[in-house]
Amino acid sequence: MASLAIYEFLPKKLCLSRNLTPQNHTIKSHLSPSSIRFFSTSPRWNLRVSEFSSSDFNSLKVNQNRLMDTIHHTCQWGTGQRWGDTPTETGMKRLALTDSDKSARDWFVSETQSLGCKTTIDAMGNIFAVRPGLNNDAPPTYAGSHLDTQPSGGRYDGILGIVAGLEMLRVLNENWVETEYPVGVVNWTNEEGARFPISMVSSAVWAHQIPLEQAHNLKEVGSGTATQKSELQKIGYLGSTPAAHTSIPLSAHFELHIEQGPILETSSSLIGIVTGVQAYKWFTITVTGKDTHTGTTPFATRADAMLTASKMILQSHRIATKHGGLASTGILNLEPGSTNTVPGIVRFSLDIRSGKDEVVEAMEKEVREVFAKIARGENVDGLNDGCTDGKPCIVDITTDSDSKAVKFHEDCIGCVRDAAGGLFGEKTEELTRELASGAGHDSVNTSKVCPTSMIFVPSKDGVSHNPAEYTKPEDCATGAQVLLGAVLRYDRLRKDRGE
Amino acid sequence: MASLAIYEFLPKKLCLSRNLTPQNHTIKSHLSPSSIRFFSTSPRWNLRVSEFSSSDFNSLKVNQNRLMDTIHHTCQWGTGQRWGDTPTETGMKRLALTDSDKSARDWFVSETQSLGCKTTIDAMGNIFAVRPGLNNDAPPTYAGSHLDTQPSGGRYDGILGIVAGLEMLRVLNENWVETEYPVGVVNWTNEEGARFPISMVSSAVWAHQIPLEQAHNLKEVGSGTATQKSELQKIGYLGSTPAAHTSIPLSAHFELHIEQGPILETSSSLIGIVTGVQAYKWFTITVTGKDTHTGTTPFATRADAMLTASKMILQSHRIATKHGGLASTGILNLEPGSTNTVPGIVRFSLDIRSGKDEVVEAMEKEVREVFAKIARGENVDGLNDGCTDGKPCIVDITTDSDSKAVKFHEDCIGCVRDAAGGLFGEKTEELTRELASGAGHDSVNTSKVCPTSMIFVPSKDGVSHNPAEYTKPEDCATGAQVLLGAVLRYDRLRKDRGE
Repeated sequence: MASLAIYEFLPKKLCLSRNLTPQNHTIKSHLSPSSIRFFSTSPRWNLRVSEFSSSDFNSLKVNQNRLMDTIHHTCQWGTGQRWGDTPTETGMKRLALTDSDKSARDWFVSETQSLGCKTTIDAMGNIFAVRPGLNNDAPPTYAGSHLDTQPSGGRYDGILGIVAGLEMLRVLNENWVETEYPVGVVNWTNEEGARFPISMVSSAVWAHQIPLEQAHNLKEVGSGTATQKSELQKIGYLGSTPAAHTSIPLSAHFELHIEQGPILETSSSLIGIVTGVQAYKWFTITVTGKDTHTGTTPFATRADAMLTASKMILQSHRIATKHGGLASTGILNLEPGSTNTVPGIVRFSLDIRSGKDEVVEAMEKEVREVFAKIARGENVDGLNDGCTDGKPCIVDITTDSDSKAVKFHEDCIGCVRDAAGGLFGEKTEELTRELASGAGHDSVNTSKVCPTSMIFVPSKDGVSHNPAEYTKPEDCATGAQVLLGAVLRYDRLRKDRGE
Repeated sequence: MASLAIYEFLPKKLCLSRNLTPQNHTIKSHLSPSSIRFFSTSPRWNLRVSEFSSSDFNSLKVNQNRLMDTIHHTCQWGTGQRWGDTPTETGMKRLALTDSDKSARDWFVSETQSLGCKTTIDAMGNIFAVRPGLNNDAPPTYAGSHLDTQPSGGRYDGILGIVAGLEMLRVLNENWVETEYPVGVVNWTNEEGARFPISMVSSAVWAHQIPLEQAHNLKEVGSGTATQKSELQKIGYLGSTPAAHTSIPLSAHFELHIEQGPILETSSSLIGIVTGVQAYKWFTITVTGKDTHTGTTPFATRADAMLTASKMILQSHRIATKHGGLASTGILNLEPGSTNTVPGIVRFSLDIRSGKDEVVEAMEKEVREVFAKIARGENVDGLNDGCTDGKPCIVDITTDSDSKAVKFHEDCIGCVRDAAGGLFGEKTEELTRELASGAGHDSVNTSKVCPTSMIFVPSKDGVSHNPAEYTKPEDCATGAQVLLGAVLRYDRLRKDRGE
């Protein structure tokens, strides 16, 4: 019975054009005959994943040109700023739940349905497209990512993961591969948080991390009055299925994504095997001194909030270096803000990160101790050498965000590792790199309720959230190939352990 | 003939109330009889400055209560933010050429005229009030300052100088003092540059430093359309006399002002003998790195403009300490400005100052060399110790202002020194301090065309441009006393050298 399900979804034209029946099928030369069998319940042959050999896995090839053509095809909706001369050298501006996002969503639904998928839309507009397997009583194994972009974004962040999922479906279909369990592709709503300012908000609702009402009532940034709910209704994507992992369970979630950093490029690696997501803490540091005239106030009587903040920013970098973590200041505001007034107040952001929670905690402890010393005027690590001692400032540190480290699931990581190994052979060690994601992704939310891992491909110059964001076609294809291999290996793993 | 002029200006009520004629005058006990004489051209006695003994100078006393009452009386026009409980514990908001400025001007004209002065208004609205002397063919010796304030200013900046000038006129009148040359008080228009954004603009026009047309066309800040000319017309202070030192010459300019810094307070000095104005240069420093994700970009691959700028700000302070100058950063902006993005561009102001032009030049040279090294990633004075080496940034330095050091006139400085010495006697060294002004004043402009110097009195906590700006009544009176003494000594000096 289970395999019958596939007939309901396999597109008719595919059956007809290839005219595949047990009587007249031809064996594709790159597939080993041993992996081809006739299912008892099926009028024709299929490739059954649980019986794949290693070489069978490698014989299933994604189509690089089709993958890239599809990526660029989808970029007709929300085309952004031009950065080069060729037709595809533009960025993207496809904010969540806008008309261009609706167009991309309509295309995704239509395309997955034409590939035989059943699509479900939940109350957050997340779209789940499922290609049935032999046993459809268990939840699908998903590839997922997002189609929305930053206002000044590129063609790869999120989009690559969705289109690679679609390419996976196409490869499965064209090779008549039958998975043990259903396989799906999910498009998560508003991953970027650019228009409605909570990132990964819809996977968070699905994973029961944020209440639906809060997400529905989230207003767009700026002076508009639109909410996520009003815009979901407006574009016709307010689904009737609850946005909940209990309603729409995932067996696993694999996400192919551009790295958005320079690690792979710098180390000449092609695939990042993502073992988790860094822990981070965000702080607002307020340094209060006294605003005084730059011309009339000697150094000795100043409480210079900007000079003090400069020492703190430098020292936070030293602390992070010592602990092997990261520390960054991306926002800084000062008051009153006049060339001839020593600032009385400086507020700056501090973002500290590490793959390990305990390292973040240790860095925070040291930052708090050291910033207090710097504010008091103590000479920390020679910062005050050659300076004039001034008056003390006051420092206040508030915690804005606290995100614990995420450890992805060993089973999923293993499938990614195996898929990369199958592809690269003895060059695997050279061409892959295990790393923790520095950025947040929907996979952080899925990892809380189902086995999850991610695959990274190189970002040119580490650039992302920028029109010039770029990943080479062959690197995109390699990523899609590993995604396909990982999903199929996970399908086999589920069968092996008898789910 | 010369002394007759005074009768035209001396207020009638004063003549009547004291009923002073040669026949029935009484000698005030604190004046030595030797300094009282009958002028051949006058029907009654006067005190003639050129014949004052040291003790005569000291016998002329400003009236502290009257001085303070007058200061606070003028603060009814443009009363600002309250900072304390007593009636006078409010700041001031009397922007140039507003209705409140007009009220203060009207009072100034009326009050000086009632004291026997002739007032002239020039094309920039500068008001020159002149009390005739014995010889009115030569230009007057002036006390001057300004009645306009910052939008969030205090009761002393500028106002003290004008009111002390008025108190000088009152003391001269009540003691029947006849100066050798005329003595004046000048109120300069828009010293602050707060509403029309060039500070000291009207003394600059008068001193031929800025063209009249440019000053007239200066638009108010914000979205308004008013110009200095339109507002001068509106409040009736667009005078017909050219705003030019050639039309309205000053023999000398003395300015009493609050220090606006902490030097006098810190050293327990009561009078600052201002020998000049610091040289300063203003720069905009642009550090260009690369904006990258804080989570995905290791330190080694970052070109972190904010970290680099922090090192520069710290090092500029060290350079200034080494040279005995000042360096300050009062403005800093960064892009793109997001907690999880390493800033790609940081722009900050750098204000360097010294009493000596050559020190400013030396500091600039070192700043340019060192900032280039820091941008390249070189380890300057251990800044990079404990840091992770990253990618280089680019630094660009543009010069926004270049103001050479101003040296006040030795004759004027000498008169201030003598006036303070007469007042403090053997405590002079303890209670006075020679210093260069850190801030600009109208005296900078007057010094370019006539002998000039300034007198500073202590600012509580060095605070200025703030509602809580405060100088003790006794300190205000001491300053006014030194101003009076300096102006009279200069009058005598002019006579001595036979002007």
